[in-house]
Amino acid sequence: VLVTSIIAKTRDEQELSTDEIQFMIHGMLDGSIADYQISAWSMAILCRGMTAKETATLTECMLASGGRLARTSDRPRVDKHSTGGLGDKVSLILAPLVACFDLDVPMLSGRGLGITGGTLDKLESYDGYRCDLTQPEIAEQLNAIGCVITGTTPQMTPADRKLYSLRDVTGTVPSIALITASILSKKLAESLDSLVLDVKFGSGAFMGTFSEASDLARSLSSTAKQMGLATRVVLSDMNQPLGKMVGNACEANEVVDVLQGAGPTDVRDLTLRLSAELLVDTKRCSSLPDATNELVKVLQSGRAFDRYVQMIEHQGGTFCESIPLARRYPVLAEKRGWLASLNGQSLGHAVIGLGGGRRTLGDSLDHSVGLEMLCRIGDPIDIGQPLINILAASDGDSESAANVLQSAIEISPDPVTPLTLIPSDIDRASP
Amino acid sequence: VLVTSIIAKTRDEQELSTDEIQFMIHGMLDGSIADYQISAWSMAILCRGMTAKETATLTECMLASGGRLARTSDRPRVDKHSTGGLGDKVSLILAPLVACFDLDVPMLSGRGLGITGGTLDKLESYDGYRCDLTQPEIAEQLNAIGCVITGTTPQMTPADRKLYSLRDVTGTVPSIALITASILSKKLAESLDSLVLDVKFGSGAFMGTFSEASDLARSLSSTAKQMGLATRVVLSDMNQPLGKMVGNACEANEVVDVLQGAGPTDVRDLTLRLSAELLVDTKRCSSLPDATNELVKVLQSGRAFDRYVQMIEHQGGTFCESIPLARRYPVLAEKRGWLASLNGQSLGHAVIGLGGGRRTLGDSLDHSVGLEMLCRIGDPIDIGQPLINILAASDGDSESAANVLQSAIEISPDPVTPLTLIPSDIDRASP
Repeated sequence: VLVTSIIAKTRDEQELSTDEIQFMIHGMLDGSIADYQISAWSMAILCRGMTAKETATLTECMLASGGRLARTSDRPRVDKHSTGGLGDKVSLILAPLVACFDLDVPMLSGRGLGITGGTLDKLESYDGYRCDLTQPEIAEQLNAIGCVITGTTPQMTPADRKLYSLRDVTGTVPSIALITASILSKKLAESLDSLVLDVKFGSGAFMGTFSEASDLARSLSSTAKQMGLATRVVLSDMNQPLGKMVGNACEANEVVDVLQGAGPTDVRDLTLRLSAELLVDTKRCSSLPDATNELVKVLQSGRAFDRYVQMIEHQGGTFCESIPLARRYPVLAEKRGWLASLNGQSLGHAVIGLGGGRRTLGDSLDHSVGLEMLCRIGDPIDIGQPLINILAASDGDSESAANVLQSAIEISPDPVTPLTLIPSDIDRASP
Repeated sequence: VLVTSIIAKTRDEQELSTDEIQFMIHGMLDGSIADYQISAWSMAILCRGMTAKETATLTECMLASGGRLARTSDRPRVDKHSTGGLGDKVSLILAPLVACFDLDVPMLSGRGLGITGGTLDKLESYDGYRCDLTQPEIAEQLNAIGCVITGTTPQMTPADRKLYSLRDVTGTVPSIALITASILSKKLAESLDSLVLDVKFGSGAFMGTFSEASDLARSLSSTAKQMGLATRVVLSDMNQPLGKMVGNACEANEVVDVLQGAGPTDVRDLTLRLSAELLVDTKRCSSLPDATNELVKVLQSGRAFDRYVQMIEHQGGTFCESIPLARRYPVLAEKRGWLASLNGQSLGHAVIGLGGGRRTLGDSLDHSVGLEMLCRIGDPIDIGQPLINILAASDGDSESAANVLQSAIEISPDPVTPLTLIPSDIDRASP
């Protein structure tokens, strides 16, 4: 009766008390509240929302359900989280890059599910790379190298794991409050001093529209503030993949390009911006332009690249500058005009079809497959021009992917304005 | 994945196809869809609503999940359903009354849960009354007497039973679409020619406001029409109990008063109105005033009373004109003025506290307890005047109830307008 009345309060847009939220999370974990009650509550939260206070309390309860990473050095501890998008390989570059500024980056990350790839999957393109470091191993590596990218340890945020597994099968993933609590509880468990969030919008992202992404950004920003975690939020456009490469090994290779001072402009720009936010927030630099200059110097010097190689080797991986990829099959333009749009959902499904992504957890991956994007929205297009190279394990796989891709590409007879990668951001005022 | 995408469609206010709704209901019944998915879907239906077409499809699927009562006579078959309210004993009077007009009334009813009493509980105040008639027994009694009031048989609408049991513990009861499908699937399983619905609003009803009740009335009316069942809907005020008696045996006694041509005006008026709708709809009478005249004659003649006694005895009960009740304890007015409001929730909880209602299914009842309401909203009140008689099994029970009741009664220093029992109705146009 008590559980039902708490669900009814959320359903009727009445604010829950701290005790009530704790009761639900504890009950979920000890099994005294049934899964069918938690899933109905999750749907009520999705439909009716939660206040800022409730969201902070939920985050706190989920954080408190497990342990936190101990602090083991005096260096400020920072991290970046992205809401996920096609071709987003920024984490792999940012962690070693900002670690060069005497910052610790304990990046606990996830695997890919659905259309967006996973940071851990990309790193596992290196033979032997371990994503299951224990807490002592994480501490040791932070001390030695200043950055680590591994999976969340079993001790951390069990409430998030349980709740997420239910949300995943009950249509309750896209809730602003639940996403906020899930992201921030995991990041708070890293005992951070500063966090930067990349909230993506568009056809290749989780939030389809700028407006939805802004709502999520505001929720993340205000909840983080209430929890006492200094957090910057950047909104970025995901209506086309970030960089040229979408897949696993091909993205790892692109990361090496950027770490060596080259690589696609958009990947580089977004990485510099997110990294600069952290340098300013931790007072390593006094302004974003200053920070950007310093970051570019470190990239050009090769120090960030060296740190990346150290990280991979420290986690058991065999570094390789250019991991061998599957065979390339070009997709040719069927008409003349300007590239108007790319359906991110379809691109993602094409990658899953090639074996480069997962339909369900437990699916195994072929790291060598993916897509190479050869043009960007706004580019002029000629008939017969290659638009995308499919990296496929077989002719048949390539043909299936080509069919999906042709319908995902829209070419306009009229000129199209290129997209702005970072159109706006939140919370720029506070230092 | 399919289940999750169906839940997501409802969540995103996209209309489900017939196949999709069937898939959910079949999956719920055969266990291939988990309870946590059905409960999340129910909450999405509650929050986002369903279209008229979806609601009709859901009703159809729930109906098709079980058997229907076979037709065994040429008499038109009618029934009444009420959304439930304090002191609502109309079913007990209406069934034998309209049966006197050569109509069959196969009234399958439920038990009380929460603040409103159950028709079956009231009838079980007669020793030996059976509420578990089999389908052949129902058919035999309809042929013999023309009316039966018993529980739904196990063969009928299993989908409704399963869904309701989940809704009850997940805060998803008050959904217009789900209530509509639940009520109408059960009534359609009775193979009716005509149905009248009493949709109640106010503090003693399930729908608190007239506006909510109107929404439900419209949904019931339009869904019944789509399903081809002639249905009239009447809205009635439940801001105070119907009649003087609230309980089980005491309500049965009041039913006998009305069947003998006496009894409280409101019970009599509402019964006449609902019955008249059925007589007009089945062409037994040409207008509501005509029908009302005929109904009054039958009440005065004692024929409806005789039919009631026959029904009780045919179902194994021992009829008693005045079932002995628990001892009366008066609640006195603490100030002078006019009776302004009665909190129906509190009155209902007082009855549950006395042992006359259930907190959970399986609670046993004391049929002899209840409340006798001695004044109505708008009545002038003197200090020390008895407002309510508590029928309690002990002094202690009476004291607890009196505490609850004092806070449920509001007396105004200014005159108060009496309530209108039937302020509006829906669908009066069609003959």
